[in-house]
Amino acid sequence: MSVITIVGAGMMGSAMAVPARDNGHEVRLVGTHLDREIIEHVKATGNHPKLQPPLPAEVQAFQIEELEAALQGIDIVIGGISSFGVDWFRDQVLPLIPQDVPVLLITKGLVHEGNGKLKTFPDYLLESRSELSISAVGGPCTSYELADRNHSAVCFCGHDLPVLAKLKGLLETDYYHITVSTDVAGVETAVAMKNAYALAVTLAVGLKERENGIGCTEAYNPQAAIFGQAMREMDKIVKMAGGKEESVVFGVSDLYVTIFGGRTRMLGTLLGRGLSIDEALQELEGVTLESVAITNRVSSAMHKLAEQGLANWENFPLLRHVDEILNQAKPVDLPWKSFGEAGAQ
Amino acid sequence: MSVITIVGAGMMGSAMAVPARDNGHEVRLVGTHLDREIIEHVKATGNHPKLQPPLPAEVQAFQIEELEAALQGIDIVIGGISSFGVDWFRDQVLPLIPQDVPVLLITKGLVHEGNGKLKTFPDYLLESRSELSISAVGGPCTSYELADRNHSAVCFCGHDLPVLAKLKGLLETDYYHITVSTDVAGVETAVAMKNAYALAVTLAVGLKERENGIGCTEAYNPQAAIFGQAMREMDKIVKMAGGKEESVVFGVSDLYVTIFGGRTRMLGTLLGRGLSIDEALQELEGVTLESVAITNRVSSAMHKLAEQGLANWENFPLLRHVDEILNQAKPVDLPWKSFGEAGAQ
Repeated sequence: MSVITIVGAGMMGSAMAVPARDNGHEVRLVGTHLDREIIEHVKATGNHPKLQPPLPAEVQAFQIEELEAALQGIDIVIGGISSFGVDWFRDQVLPLIPQDVPVLLITKGLVHEGNGKLKTFPDYLLESRSELSISAVGGPCTSYELADRNHSAVCFCGHDLPVLAKLKGLLETDYYHITVSTDVAGVETAVAMKNAYALAVTLAVGLKERENGIGCTEAYNPQAAIFGQAMREMDKIVKMAGGKEESVVFGVSDLYVTIFGGRTRMLGTLLGRGLSIDEALQELEGVTLESVAITNRVSSAMHKLAEQGLANWENFPLLRHVDEILNQAKPVDLPWKSFGEAGAQ
Repeated sequence: MSVITIVGAGMMGSAMAVPARDNGHEVRLVGTHLDREIIEHVKATGNHPKLQPPLPAEVQAFQIEELEAALQGIDIVIGGISSFGVDWFRDQVLPLIPQDVPVLLITKGLVHEGNGKLKTFPDYLLESRSELSISAVGGPCTSYELADRNHSAVCFCGHDLPVLAKLKGLLETDYYHITVSTDVAGVETAVAMKNAYALAVTLAVGLKERENGIGCTEAYNPQAAIFGQAMREMDKIVKMAGGKEESVVFGVSDLYVTIFGGRTRMLGTLLGRGLSIDEALQELEGVTLESVAITNRVSSAMHKLAEQGLANWENFPLLRHVDEILNQAKPVDLPWKSFGEAGAQ
């Protein structure tokens, strides 16, 4: 038995308690300053207020003020914050983690520091504490389905294979399937991009509804056309990031799962129906939109690279169009005829 | 305006009349000996008995006995048969096609001639009439959505680029998007495999129903896990066939569309619920099961190659399991832990 502290009590952070407890570990769930009510609820009821399946028994809940106590005598830390909480995690949590305690991030996203170069979250955090071992989870795994113990296949990526093997040993169950990879750039870039491209695919859901009415039968030919172009562009972005071909699959399968639920699908559908980005965001008030964040970060990097002649927007017509919808208030008008051109002969 | 003769009046063959007529071509739809009632219906009503959206006006229908008349003065032939009709097409239709008339096949599948080597349908047919130009359509495009004029992105692949450009010019519309490729082996192998792997992904639909009841909420983590492994295995099979990396996307996006409808999903779901292959086939009596045919062909080739040390089943745990379900009456028990192993480090 080990002691695992999860910092961040959102859906995915909390869901990680399920495989951890199923393997008999002591699990401490620490809320951020934004999770105060969640932690009160867990302390009072033993369950999470938003995550549908029940939390396993004996998950210990901690408010952020109790963080230091929650980090005593632990074996690993799981960073359960969203991409919007990464700097907070770096400043408030990372300094308190003992040097020999590995960190596993569930956060998906990339950092653009303004020069066109994108950085993965593990590498971004390692700049602050290079002596730590910081790995990350990528791949198709929604929180509620993990908490419901559905078969889920993920990749733990990091720079340290023995640490990855240790993390896998602690967290793998008969339903939580883990491959490990040292291709941090490839895995993290691929899975970060899935949010931008899930927004793109679900534009087709809204476009169809605009034609046939909300709740109409879906059309899959258009979704598949966008899905295929998303795969082409993800492949190119992974290679630009120095990642390996074999890691693209984690982004593509994560794209598949992201299309079928949650906030990104809601945003894509609203935009496809004809709402402007401002109207859509107003309708979705209060939800965390990783898809907007990653599109903006990667697009701003791409603009920088294109200015320097280091990237060609022509290769990314789909990402460019999503960027135009989000940042130039352009109406949805998918560039179907440019799909596949770069790859075709 | 050109004259286009479609031989085979199934759903997909007939749907090709829609972009062809929208471009103003004369369209002749010839039924096979199995399509007699369909052609009678089209002659009587102008519409197809199974394809939901109406056929365009002025599609001329021909019974098989009228084939020679239907081939007079034509510009292209579209081979609209299923994989089960390829030998019939070779023997009965191919000899009658004038030498300067290009053929475009909508058929998906591969031929295994018993030695472990898989052949694409264009190349198989070219053995009989090497002086013809025979190309094929691959990519995600269901017949009813094409006939409904949804955006659909396909690839025309063949050995002759000017012919591909001509075919694209004749058939591309504002909703039917065509890229062209000379990678016949890659495109045809990728899109043929999608039927086997769509069966694999939809096993998860039935497995969930076995747990929670028919019609229950779907779980996408397991589907995505299988989808990712399908992509890995398709990639390897395309490379074994001498195909290019860039062609895999047509198979993966075609897999996406195939998961969401039709016969393959029905079979995968029934097997996932716990029916044996015999019970499932009985329930689906009368439907054409491309998924069973392609799994059997590729598996038999793989067995041959493995015997000779030229292929390793370890790299294809998902295909192997589908083969076991279909041909050894094994119950569904997905090899989750072997997913990704070959690609991981």
